Amino acid sequence: MTSVEVTTLAPAIDIADALFRKIAARTPDPAGEGAGVSRPSFGEGEQIAHDLVRAIGTQHGLECHVDKVGSLHLTLPGRDRSAAPIVIGSHLDSVPQGGDYDGTAGVLLGLAVAIGLSRMEVVPPVDIVTLAIRAEESAWFDASYVGSRSALGLLSHDDARKIRRSDTGRSLADHMAEAGFDPSELDDTAPAIDPAKVGAFIEAHIEQGPLLIDRAVPLGLVSGIRGSLRYRTARCIGEYAHSGATPRHLRHDAVSATAALIEATNALWRQFEAAGEDLVFTVGKLHTDPAADAFSKVSGETTFTIDVRSLSTDTLDRFDAELQAAAQEIAKTHGVTIELGPKTGSTPAAIDGRMIEKLSSLAADLSIGTEIMPSGAGHDAAVFAGAGVPTAMIFIRNTHGSHNPDESMEMADFAEAARLVMAYCLAAK
Amino acid sequence: MTSVEVTTLAPAIDIADALFRKIAARTPDPAGEGAGVSRPSFGEGEQIAHDLVRAIGTQHGLECHVDKVGSLHLTLPGRDRSAAPIVIGSHLDSVPQGGDYDGTAGVLLGLAVAIGLSRMEVVPPVDIVTLAIRAEESAWFDASYVGSRSALGLLSHDDARKIRRSDTGRSLADHMAEAGFDPSELDDTAPAIDPAKVGAFIEAHIEQGPLLIDRAVPLGLVSGIRGSLRYRTARCIGEYAHSGATPRHLRHDAVSATAALIEATNALWRQFEAAGEDLVFTVGKLHTDPAADAFSKVSGETTFTIDVRSLSTDTLDRFDAELQAAAQEIAKTHGVTIELGPKTGSTPAAIDGRMIEKLSSLAADLSIGTEIMPSGAGHDAAVFAGAGVPTAMIFIRNTHGSHNPDESMEMADFAEAARLVMAYCLAAK
Repeated sequence: MTSVEVTTLAPAIDIADALFRKIAARTPDPAGEGAGVSRPSFGEGEQIAHDLVRAIGTQHGLECHVDKVGSLHLTLPGRDRSAAPIVIGSHLDSVPQGGDYDGTAGVLLGLAVAIGLSRMEVVPPVDIVTLAIRAEESAWFDASYVGSRSALGLLSHDDARKIRRSDTGRSLADHMAEAGFDPSELDDTAPAIDPAKVGAFIEAHIEQGPLLIDRAVPLGLVSGIRGSLRYRTARCIGEYAHSGATPRHLRHDAVSATAALIEATNALWRQFEAAGEDLVFTVGKLHTDPAADAFSKVSGETTFTIDVRSLSTDTLDRFDAELQAAAQEIAKTHGVTIELGPKTGSTPAAIDGRMIEKLSSLAADLSIGTEIMPSGAGHDAAVFAGAGVPTAMIFIRNTHGSHNPDESMEMADFAEAARLVMAYCLAAK
Repeated sequence: MTSVEVTTLAPAIDIADALFRKIAARTPDPAGEGAGVSRPSFGEGEQIAHDLVRAIGTQHGLECHVDKVGSLHLTLPGRDRSAAPIVIGSHLDSVPQGGDYDGTAGVLLGLAVAIGLSRMEVVPPVDIVTLAIRAEESAWFDASYVGSRSALGLLSHDDARKIRRSDTGRSLADHMAEAGFDPSELDDTAPAIDPAKVGAFIEAHIEQGPLLIDRAVPLGLVSGIRGSLRYRTARCIGEYAHSGATPRHLRHDAVSATAALIEATNALWRQFEAAGEDLVFTVGKLHTDPAADAFSKVSGETTFTIDVRSLSTDTLDRFDAELQAAAQEIAKTHGVTIELGPKTGSTPAAIDGRMIEKLSSLAADLSIGTEIMPSGAGHDAAVFAGAGVPTAMIFIRNTHGSHNPDESMEMADFAEAARLVMAYCLAAK
C-alpha cells in the first residue's frame, strides 16, 4: 500500500450510484415498465449514457477525448504523465431489454475511482483513464467488441462497411455516420490506445453466473476468459414411424439418439471436470420439427445447439474430438445421421497472472473477499488481453445473471470493487 | 378345408383393384397432386367411397343395409341364414392427406371375398357381411370408432351431441344430419349388430409399421391390439442460466434432465423387452421454449410427449410406475421439476386365440407366409373385441407406414389376405 491508508480509500460511490439510476431512467426499453433498458450500439440510448458520463467526468475535471468510433476516454492525470496509464473501462451499450449493470458497472467504476482520487486530492502515480467503450454487444450488429477493436486499431473502414445491424440491415458505417461519426477516419487504423503503451486494462463487470452468490463472496478475480466451440445448427436425422407399430430394432429415432448424445457428452464433461479441466457444455435449444412431429410418431428429426467453453484451447479441441466420436458412435447404434454442422467459436483470452496476484493480495489487505474464477463469456477485456495489454477482470456479485431487466448488484459490493481498483491504481509504479 | 379346393379360391381381386383406384381418384385431398386422399368422417369423400362400394355390392347381388350412422352392411347369404354371420370390415373415412389403403383395404377385402364366392357360385356356410364403417379416424372428430361403436349400440344421441369436429367446432349430430342421417335415431341404442350373434369379426388392414417388410412376409396375424399410456403434455422445469458462466453443480438444466429421463426410460424398455414383455416407448415431440431458449443459455424448460403401448395392462402399469420413479430420481439429481401431466390411454384389446390358430393353420395349408405380431394402434376391431365378438385382424405388408400419401400395398399381398379370409369363411360351421 502507498502512503494513502487503506481506511481512507474513498471512491465516489455516490456519483456512480446517481449515474446508475439516471442512465437507467433515461434509457428504458420501448416495451415499457418491467422491460429494462435498451441502448442500441450507436443508437440513441448509448449516446444518452455517453453524454451523462461525459458531463460528470468533465465537471470533475477529467480530461476528455472522444475517439473515431465515439468511445469516451476520461483521464485523471498522474504524477508521471509519460508513464503507461491504467485504463479502467467497459461498455455503455446494452442488449434489448437488458439490465442496469452489464457494461455500465465497469465504466462507472472507473469514474468512481478517478473522481474519488480527485476529491481526496491524491494524484495517482500514472494517468488513470476511464474508458466508456462503444458497441460491445453482438445483439445489434453481427459483430462484437466494435469499440475496443477500433480503439486498439483492429477495425478497418472496410470492416465497418461489412458489419450489418440485424434489424435495419444497414452497415455499421451507416449507423456510425448517423450517430455523428465519420467512418472514413477508420481508413487510418492508428490506434487510439497503443497496446504497447498501456500499463494495465481493468474491466469490472457483474458476474453473469451464480457462483459468487453461492459462495457468499462479493468479488471474483477472473483467471481467464473462456473461449468457445459452437455448433449452432446441429441436426439428427432419423426416420418418422408409427409409435405403436414400429419395434425398437427397426426404429431410427432422432429423439432417442439426441438424448443419448446429450447424456454421453454430459458424461464426457464429468470426466474432464474430474481431471481438473476447465469446461462447460450446454445444449440450450432442442426441437423436434413442429411441422412433422406428433406424440404418436417416432421422431424423424431434431435440431439442437451445442455450446462448449473452456479457458484452454487444447481442452476445447480434445473435447470436440471426443464429442464428434460420440456422435458418430451414437449415429451408428441408433441408425440415424448426426450432422453437427458448421463449427464456430472464439479463442480463450489470458488474464495477466501478476495482476491477479496483485489484486488478490490488495484484496486481502483490504479484507475484501474474493474468489478466483473463470469468465464464461467474452468481454472487451478479451480484446485488450488479445492485443497484449496486461489485463484483469473483476466480477461483482449479481443475482439473476445478466442481459435481463433483473440484473441486481449491491452498491456495497460495487464499492468494494472500486476500493480494490483504487488501491491497485495507487500501488502502480 | 371344405369341398372347395385350395387352388380354386378366387376372390374378386379385379373388382377390389378397380375400386381402390376409383375411390382414390374420386377423393383427392384439396391440396392437389401428391397430397393423397382426404375423406372426412361424414364428409363428401367418405360418402363418395360408400356410394362406390354400395353400387358394386348391390350390382353383384349382395343384400344392402345402411345403419343409423350410415355404415354399409352388404350381405352374401349363407346356407344357414340363422347361423352367426362372419363380418368382414373396416372404415372408408381417411385422415387428411392420407393414403389409398388405410381402412379401404379391409372393406374391399370383404367385397372381394363375397363377390368371389358369388362368382364361384359357392354358397358359404353362414352369411358373410361386408361392413363399411363410418368415422373411424380421430382426425376429424374428437372421438374414434364412431361407426363401430354405433353399430354395437355403444354410441348415444347424447354422445353425438357432445362429440365435436375439430375444424368446424360443430357436433357429430350436426354433421350426421348434414350427411343425411337422423341423429335422433341414436335415442334407440339397439345395436345394428348384436355382438352375441356374430360368429367372427375380421378386419384386414395395411401394417402401419415396417415389420413385415423387414421379415419379407406378406401377412401378419395380429396377436392383440396394444393399449396405451400417454403423457401428452409432460414438462421439465429447470432454470435459465448463462451457458458460459454457470458451473455444472449450480445448473438446473431442463434439457440435460429430459435427455437423462429419455435415456433411462429407453433402458427400462430394453429391460422389459429382455424379460419378454410386449412394449413400445416413444417421445415423439420434444421442445425447449422457442420464446426463451438460446444457444448461450442453460435451458429452463422443455415440453415433451410420452407414448407407451403394450398388449398387457399389467405391463403398462408396471412400466408407468418405473417411469414415474425414474422421473422423480432424475428431477432430484438434476435439480429440476418434472411434471408428467395428465395421463390418458386405452385398454389393450384381446384377439380371439382360436381364430389366430385357425387362420394360421389355413395360411399354412394355402402356403401363405404369416407372422404373429401385435397391432400397435387401435382399430375398429378393438371395439368389436371389446364388445365380446370373436375378433381377428390380418395385417397386409405395406411400405411407408399409414396415414400418408405414400402408403403402398401390393395387390398380390392383398390377394393372399383375401384367399385366407375366403378359406376361413368356407371353413365356418
